Amino acid sequence: MKMIEGGVCAAKGFKAGAIHCGLKKSQNKKDLAIIVSEHSCHAAAVYTKNKVKAAPLYLNREHLSNGTATAIIVNSGNANACAPDEVETTKREADAAAKFLGIDVEEVLVASTGVIGKRLNVECIEETIGDMSLSSEASLDAAMAIMTTDTKVKMIAVTFELSGKVCHLGGICKGSGMIHPNMGTMLAFLTTDCAISSDMLSKALKEDVKKTFNRVTVDGDTSTNDMCIILANGMAQNSYIDTEDADYKVFAAALHKVNLELAKKIAGDGEGAGKLMTCTVTGAKNEEDAEILAKSICSSSLVKAAIFGADANWGRVLCAMGYSGANFHTDEVSIEFLSSVGKIPVCVNGKGIAFDEEKAKKVLSSDEVEIFVTLKEGTGTVSCWGCDLTYDYVKINGDYRT
Amino acid sequence: MKMIEGGVCAAKGFKAGAIHCGLKKSQNKKDLAIIVSEHSCHAAAVYTKNKVKAAPLYLNREHLSNGTATAIIVNSGNANACAPDEVETTKREADAAAKFLGIDVEEVLVASTGVIGKRLNVECIEETIGDMSLSSEASLDAAMAIMTTDTKVKMIAVTFELSGKVCHLGGICKGSGMIHPNMGTMLAFLTTDCAISSDMLSKALKEDVKKTFNRVTVDGDTSTNDMCIILANGMAQNSYIDTEDADYKVFAAALHKVNLELAKKIAGDGEGAGKLMTCTVTGAKNEEDAEILAKSICSSSLVKAAIFGADANWGRVLCAMGYSGANFHTDEVSIEFLSSVGKIPVCVNGKGIAFDEEKAKKVLSSDEVEIFVTLKEGTGTVSCWGCDLTYDYVKINGDYRT
Repeated sequence: MKMIEGGVCAAKGFKAGAIHCGLKKSQNKKDLAIIVSEHSCHAAAVYTKNKVKAAPLYLNREHLSNGTATAIIVNSGNANACAPDEVETTKREADAAAKFLGIDVEEVLVASTGVIGKRLNVECIEETIGDMSLSSEASLDAAMAIMTTDTKVKMIAVTFELSGKVCHLGGICKGSGMIHPNMGTMLAFLTTDCAISSDMLSKALKEDVKKTFNRVTVDGDTSTNDMCIILANGMAQNSYIDTEDADYKVFAAALHKVNLELAKKIAGDGEGAGKLMTCTVTGAKNEEDAEILAKSICSSSLVKAAIFGADANWGRVLCAMGYSGANFHTDEVSIEFLSSVGKIPVCVNGKGIAFDEEKAKKVLSSDEVEIFVTLKEGTGTVSCWGCDLTYDYVKINGDYRT
Repeated sequence: MKMIEGGVCAAKGFKAGAIHCGLKKSQNKKDLAIIVSEHSCHAAAVYTKNKVKAAPLYLNREHLSNGTATAIIVNSGNANACAPDEVETTKREADAAAKFLGIDVEEVLVASTGVIGKRLNVECIEETIGDMSLSSEASLDAAMAIMTTDTKVKMIAVTFELSGKVCHLGGICKGSGMIHPNMGTMLAFLTTDCAISSDMLSKALKEDVKKTFNRVTVDGDTSTNDMCIILANGMAQNSYIDTEDADYKVFAAALHKVNLELAKKIAGDGEGAGKLMTCTVTGAKNEEDAEILAKSICSSSLVKAAIFGADANWGRVLCAMGYSGANFHTDEVSIEFLSSVGKIPVCVNGKGIAFDEEKAKKVLSSDEVEIFVTLKEGTGTVSCWGCDLTYDYVKINGDYRT
């Protein structure tokens, strides 16, 4: 497996396009994107587990009932959730894409992100979609068009070999706020030319999202619009994957690499974030407990604020473990802070140890910081990803709509 | 029932005292308090549900096994949790109080609040405790001595009548950060001269904490040190309460009033808080669901940041309800924002309605703001309390230890 350029256009037969249609105020900001395959694809998706769901999620469930799709239309600037006419405007957004692309509307999937509760100005989509040009070079444009408060473009692709054929898998995503585990996921769009059944695609996606996107938290708020879609057009001509064979495992490993990198990009670019925070728990009773503990640490406002302040306040880490609900022996917990600068053990067997505060400050002042927790309960090891809690998070979210 | 002055010294036979013993750096800040009754009291307590518990909690469980206590010694500046020698230093703190007061050490309860993981300098408590003077006027001193990042003193008392006798119940508490429901509670100390068995006292306290302190959240972090203790010395000479009779109900109502006011004081003075945020959910299937929904809204970083910015971003309210885990019909939810300035309905039957943004800004710019959610599932109604998420929360917690 090898990292390559190209994002959602890296796989054979995929094009993308993006324009400013008018949903975002600034003329300079693209707000509508399309990702489309030359041929109909096997497709799979996971959605938010929020009980309040945006209209596009219901439409996609319907359109994916046969396991195929050809294109995805995505708008930013409006979530089309709890909004007047949301079912109708979603349908019209899909219709506009189908008409523009000359395909059946059932082959179109829709995704939206932005403010909740306001009617989607679908008219501006219908009026401007004809201006969009599609190209196999436009993954970056599409990745930019789906951004809201994201500050960085999130894009990746890999290549791998199956039955002597070169396959590609790439993706784009957006994150930033309203990001929390226990969901389908945030907006992520993946394309591959791998030949694989929609059942296997769905299985691979569901299992992997649990270990990647669902281990990211920015603010504990699970959105109404989260989704992750994968399209597989089979153009790599590898031998068709329809069972969990060796090829499936190679594909799943490529999918994991892509999802993991995208997930970490979302964590590191959380709203207002200055740092990517990784929390690894090892030696937990099992993987489930390790995940509960790591997520609880990553979600703690107090831990996040301490990381912002480069303050080695490990008591907050232990505190967050204590209220997580997972079982462990307090007197067997050890905690270290790590970064490219070095490593600082701060707690051994549940008690604080003396450490060099100045060095700790340096370790925690890096752009990427890891909290490493060791237990003696078993072999469960899990990493989760989050970010620091900053003034900018408050600023961004104190006045998001205006 | 009537509000009165006096806090923990309002009830007959209770005195308090406070000094600066040296645990807080500033000489001006008191950091050690004692609350003591003339006679041994029936006593009850609830504790944090955090798996990581500070040493004083274990000591109190032991000392309360017979249902009686005479005094509480409280230090701020050090939590004595996950700290070297924490069992020994807690024991020595209790011993120092017992010696000073001339009572059995088993009659002393201990509470601590402050930084986690550092050895408690119990020597400075032992050396200075003799300087403390006890008085029935010192509730304010004690309330100040237990503060950490609290900005306001939290104290209240009420008087009520039982079997023709005047009874008193008062309390002090501290809150600020690491405050979240699902716990025993934060530090709160209540005193009463009511004659009541320790079983009835414990029952009343446990039931009421669920509806008061446990419905407060500041940051979702349940502390290692939370506790609420009540001492009842019986000096009001009312007929002894040892069953759930009419007198018990009067006592429980007084307890509820005191706990409710203290809980709201904690929410409104959350770390960095500028506003008290009340969230009321009515028409939920039952009380349990109403509480889950109200807590989820109060805990949402995005809702809290919107309240900080006086932004009527009700989509975040609905979103927080959606991921709460409670069942409800999305299309039957109505949401209003209220304050002393007025009332703004923003969502009816799950959809946004037009509203006056300027008026909404005014309503949400008050010191006390309410989010009022109406469902059509049943009769469950619950209020929870929280605060806005501000720059100051980040500032306070980015550098708490230094």
